Amino acid sequence: MPDTSSQTPLRVAIAGLGTVGSGVIRLLDTNRDLIAARAGRAIEVSAVSARDRSKDRGVNHQRFHWEDDMAALAAREDVDVVLELVGGSDGPALALSRATLAAGKGLVTANKAMIAHHGLALAEAAEARETPLKFEAAVAGGIPVVKGLREGTSANALTKVYGILNGTCNYILSEMEATGADFAETLGEAQRLGYAEADPTFDIEGIDAAHKLAILAAIGFGARVDFANVRTTGIVAVRAADIAQADALGFVIRLIAEADAQDGRLLQRVRPCLVAKDHPLSGVDGPTNAVVAEGNFSGRLLFQGAGAGDGPTASAVVADLIDIARVFENGGEVGAPFSMPVAQLAPLGPADSADRLERTYLRFTVNDRPGVLAEITAAMRDADVSIESLIQQGRGSADGEVLVAMVTHEGPERSVAKALELLEGSESLTAAPLVLPILPA
Amino acid sequence: MPDTSSQTPLRVAIAGLGTVGSGVIRLLDTNRDLIAARAGRAIEVSAVSARDRSKDRGVNHQRFHWEDDMAALAAREDVDVVLELVGGSDGPALALSRATLAAGKGLVTANKAMIAHHGLALAEAAEARETPLKFEAAVAGGIPVVKGLREGTSANALTKVYGILNGTCNYILSEMEATGADFAETLGEAQRLGYAEADPTFDIEGIDAAHKLAILAAIGFGARVDFANVRTTGIVAVRAADIAQADALGFVIRLIAEADAQDGRLLQRVRPCLVAKDHPLSGVDGPTNAVVAEGNFSGRLLFQGAGAGDGPTASAVVADLIDIARVFENGGEVGAPFSMPVAQLAPLGPADSADRLERTYLRFTVNDRPGVLAEITAAMRDADVSIESLIQQGRGSADGEVLVAMVTHEGPERSVAKALELLEGSESLTAAPLVLPILPA
Repeated sequence: MPDTSSQTPLRVAIAGLGTVGSGVIRLLDTNRDLIAARAGRAIEVSAVSARDRSKDRGVNHQRFHWEDDMAALAAREDVDVVLELVGGSDGPALALSRATLAAGKGLVTANKAMIAHHGLALAEAAEARETPLKFEAAVAGGIPVVKGLREGTSANALTKVYGILNGTCNYILSEMEATGADFAETLGEAQRLGYAEADPTFDIEGIDAAHKLAILAAIGFGARVDFANVRTTGIVAVRAADIAQADALGFVIRLIAEADAQDGRLLQRVRPCLVAKDHPLSGVDGPTNAVVAEGNFSGRLLFQGAGAGDGPTASAVVADLIDIARVFENGGEVGAPFSMPVAQLAPLGPADSADRLERTYLRFTVNDRPGVLAEITAAMRDADVSIESLIQQGRGSADGEVLVAMVTHEGPERSVAKALELLEGSESLTAAPLVLPILPA
Repeated sequence: MPDTSSQTPLRVAIAGLGTVGSGVIRLLDTNRDLIAARAGRAIEVSAVSARDRSKDRGVNHQRFHWEDDMAALAAREDVDVVLELVGGSDGPALALSRATLAAGKGLVTANKAMIAHHGLALAEAAEARETPLKFEAAVAGGIPVVKGLREGTSANALTKVYGILNGTCNYILSEMEATGADFAETLGEAQRLGYAEADPTFDIEGIDAAHKLAILAAIGFGARVDFANVRTTGIVAVRAADIAQADALGFVIRLIAEADAQDGRLLQRVRPCLVAKDHPLSGVDGPTNAVVAEGNFSGRLLFQGAGAGDGPTASAVVADLIDIARVFENGGEVGAPFSMPVAQLAPLGPADSADRLERTYLRFTVNDRPGVLAEITAAMRDADVSIESLIQQGRGSADGEVLVAMVTHEGPERSVAKALELLEGSESLTAAPLVLPILPA
């Protein structure tokens, strides 16, 4: 193995100098020698581009060539790999990514939305030019879980991939748990502290987690990315009272993204779930992410760490660069972005989950009047839902609203759906019931 | 990217057909198509060798060429990669490994003892021939932690690597915790259940964990493997009473392997430690393994899963084969076994830890007579050890033996050592004191 110093450096262009872009520059500066030793050659930034040249970013980027036109980075002769850190599923990020791969250069991106929507087309473009496309930072920040599934569990047929993929939701839910505060208040606090964005829709509605899940599912199950069929429920409807009830029953509430492939169909869901306190995911608090992969030989593997932040995200971005520097020389093979060539990824249709068995937490907000419990329990009986435990909470509010929470025995999803159908339009209910599945042990 | 079917298969020889070897064959059979899709070509076993040809191993190996002489596998023309699954740091395993690399073939091994003792020399041989040497299965069974440190955290300077690396000890300690039984009884039960070997010395004395730690430390810190300087304490002295005391104080006891590199020196230790119940490692029960890596940009990463067993170990072995199949074609680069070329690994000397600050659990077994507590606490005072809490346990045994357990405030290791020195030879003590560090949060 030749000495590092004799090797040509890997030359990188950075598009986007927000927190992640600046973090990458800081990381490349701070760990320069170590990175060169591990990569087998230096990694050097040639050129950068961002919207506003004059903005202070806390790192010195004046030493790099500046391109006003982001897309021009792909055409530069002094660039081997483009880092796309602009964000957004389409627009400039996608245009730059396409141009980069078309030019036969490597592409590293942290853009989960773009990979969830256009990952297959980009992977095909990368394959056509035998150039690397890597996106470790797109899923779970600094946790090497794209690599973990693509290479670590590569010998396994996975039975299941699931985890906590959105730090904002996990922060809000674990704060609600710790403080007893309600959702809106906790979201406001999270925004003040920088754990939630000014427009938190993508996070709290579960869309961000769905982007990441679609990517993991494709890699884990060798399936075509199918973001459109991720069934997604956010955390907006979870109340402080639900978290208290869950706690009393031995559970915490977490936004769980989960996927499995059975009978040639892919089931992908993002939902708040009850997680038993002895499950490894129950201890995942704050903005931490965690992914569980269950393989037919490996058994259950857990990957856990910081799901966001400039440092962890930069760590993932530069790990991709080091991988590329190690193998992408003289046209060396870098492997398929989704673990196998796009043509071999299975076009798995979306699974129907109506017959899937699960235990369920149901919470009803009801008027405090006689007969309400009888009405609810009759609907359960008629839909064949077996109740394991039921708690009616005393009047909490001045308007006479009462909470009825229950946990069902394991039964098919369709039964719970039927029970809710039977109760639809009931004057006893003051709001839509909340249905939270219980994560299996 | 060409179709799989057009590629020549990767041809493998297996040395050793114990549980792991048989597991590898079963895995290659079970997941054949999936492995070919991910590897870009088929992985086929050409030849096998083991001590006893006639032994029933639960898998059909009659279809492969049989070599009576294991070393002959390395010379076969129909072999690209040899799997060394024989075990033992020297002897036939080492001879075969040397012959394999000298022949320019790839080597995949699950042999932690051999890599801990001879990993550098083998890596040099691999580098000289530009052939792959991989050993994911040598550390933490099915958890892709060698890859995690070598590639996942490659952009980081690590501040610390630590974890639970021996499933036998973890099984025994968590069983003692669950049942209240003492060490000897639990070891016997573990042996009956197959969680401990007939001769459990390597496991319960911490040597197995030390092998694995030395490997992780080399990769994580870019240091030369230095097994000889892993300071190792086993779990034999841990009593049921210690586990009960730890529990009362909010801790569990786990055998922790930990390494850090400071000021150009490497500190490597394997010791039973008190782990706070809210630390992620406290929930790691039974034969599970877990590794924490703390990087200067990634922050804290946790990898957890099955630390042993034929399935998980085979999963790691075949992941290595898939990596090799992906890149090891036409002389493609596979990267340095220890993350950087051997010549660039730093020869870090062993660190002195006397000035390191830690909180410590101390347990004395004493005669039940006046003045004992005064003698112990005086020694603590004279050595400048500050006591945070102290419990004297009522007479548990007929012989008047009493336990005194205490937790110190954070202080230098040397102070505790001095206190013990002051108490050496004291007639109040009926056995050597037990000293367990408390793992920092």
